[in-house]
Amino acid sequence: RAVYHAVSKTVTKTPWLQQSKPSYSDEPPKLGQDGFGVRELFEFPGEQQTDLFSDELPPPSSHGLIESFSALRYKGQVARTVLVCEGKDSLVLIDQHAAHERVNFDRLWQAVENKQVAQEPLMFPEVLGLDPNEIAGLEKSKDLLLSLGLDLEFYSGDSVAIRSIPAIMRGKSAAALVRDCAQAATGSSGTTGIERLHLMVATIACHSSIRAGDALSDDEALALLKSMDSVKDFAGYCPHGRQAVVVHPISTVLRWFGR
Amino acid sequence: RAVYHAVSKTVTKTPWLQQSKPSYSDEPPKLGQDGFGVRELFEFPGEQQTDLFSDELPPPSSHGLIESFSALRYKGQVARTVLVCEGKDSLVLIDQHAAHERVNFDRLWQAVENKQVAQEPLMFPEVLGLDPNEIAGLEKSKDLLLSLGLDLEFYSGDSVAIRSIPAIMRGKSAAALVRDCAQAATGSSGTTGIERLHLMVATIACHSSIRAGDALSDDEALALLKSMDSVKDFAGYCPHGRQAVVVHPISTVLRWFGR
Repeated sequence: RAVYHAVSKTVTKTPWLQQSKPSYSDEPPKLGQDGFGVRELFEFPGEQQTDLFSDELPPPSSHGLIESFSALRYKGQVARTVLVCEGKDSLVLIDQHAAHERVNFDRLWQAVENKQVAQEPLMFPEVLGLDPNEIAGLEKSKDLLLSLGLDLEFYSGDSVAIRSIPAIMRGKSAAALVRDCAQAATGSSGTTGIERLHLMVATIACHSSIRAGDALSDDEALALLKSMDSVKDFAGYCPHGRQAVVVHPISTVLRWFGR
Repeated sequence: RAVYHAVSKTVTKTPWLQQSKPSYSDEPPKLGQDGFGVRELFEFPGEQQTDLFSDELPPPSSHGLIESFSALRYKGQVARTVLVCEGKDSLVLIDQHAAHERVNFDRLWQAVENKQVAQEPLMFPEVLGLDPNEIAGLEKSKDLLLSLGLDLEFYSGDSVAIRSIPAIMRGKSAAALVRDCAQAATGSSGTTGIERLHLMVATIACHSSIRAGDALSDDEALALLKSMDSVKDFAGYCPHGRQAVVVHPISTVLRWFGR
């Protein structure tokens, strides 16, 4: 439910979709080709050090700051949530969940574009009890969800069987995904087809991603960095509109110390 | 020369010396017993995220945030200058030079207090040419420097022989130290004895420390962290008054990502 609310509140903050066609009935939209700002943080004058910051320049454009995520020097994980890396003249922090979600969103979106969404049949279909209005919402979105690899069978007014999941979801909880899809479906009436598609792709991307709080081995962290390179024009946002990457130029870091 | 200017400009910003006796002629002063703030950085509202920051609380007291530097989880070195660590609910950044300088300053100051400054004789005294006024300044500070382990012999009006160095300086350039001591001595006329002592101890601490730009092995970084625990009430300042430690609470780090 928390995930759904996050999605529904920020689904409009998706700069890379603004160039998309407004309807899903046609072919899937092209992703926007612009790179969007990887966020850079600049300090504001602190009480004790006003003089050091008074000539602060406005943030420079961030384009091109990170050419390759796999080329970053990975230092370690902090709070089991943030990957600390060293870039070219910068301290780069990556939100492991937001970044993975963005990678998975793009992979799934690309697969939708190419009509190549991989499906993972469940050997033993999982049956889930839901509110009647959630069932109704899911039933209306049945074809949309099927195109994303989620095959649902409706047995009665209050339960649904999950027959297959998107392959990207392998090893994750199908039931939790379907509950959030049901929330999304019931809450998305009055939205356009493309908005509903985006919402469902984002929901699947969220559920298939590394979570905040997951301990990552060095190999897993490096694999995530590598996968980020596959996203064309990494926007630094997760599909919910949150930051995935924060870049502190080294000049800023040194200024924290009064250097 | 750059080092000297840094010292002379900021020699008054040394909170841990404000409780000291104003004269060196007596016994060496006791170090102040108060812990001084390890700096914490808090973000100010950014254009895009004003709502997220609007209820920012004032920075809490930093006392007790870092109980033990050796207990920090070391992640790696950035820009060959900053050690990145994870603390209890915090991202801790340490300026390797400023921190080591503070450690060495305290060690030497403690040794002065206990009249146990270790001296390292040079097998082959190094002879150094200097300006006559620098020689004059050094000659006036001869006894002070000798009490710090720096034994100088004056041959003529324009050269000096270095017969021993403070043991803490082992492996570092004695000539560079003496040049900076000469600068400090000529620039410190009109200062009190305690100020001159502080200036010389700070100059020796600076020259005996890891520098910004030095690549550190993990073992060297861990040794530095461990040595920081030996400083009673680590103030987070180097003897020049610069920050040595910057603490970003995890709540702040997560807010950078909009969490």
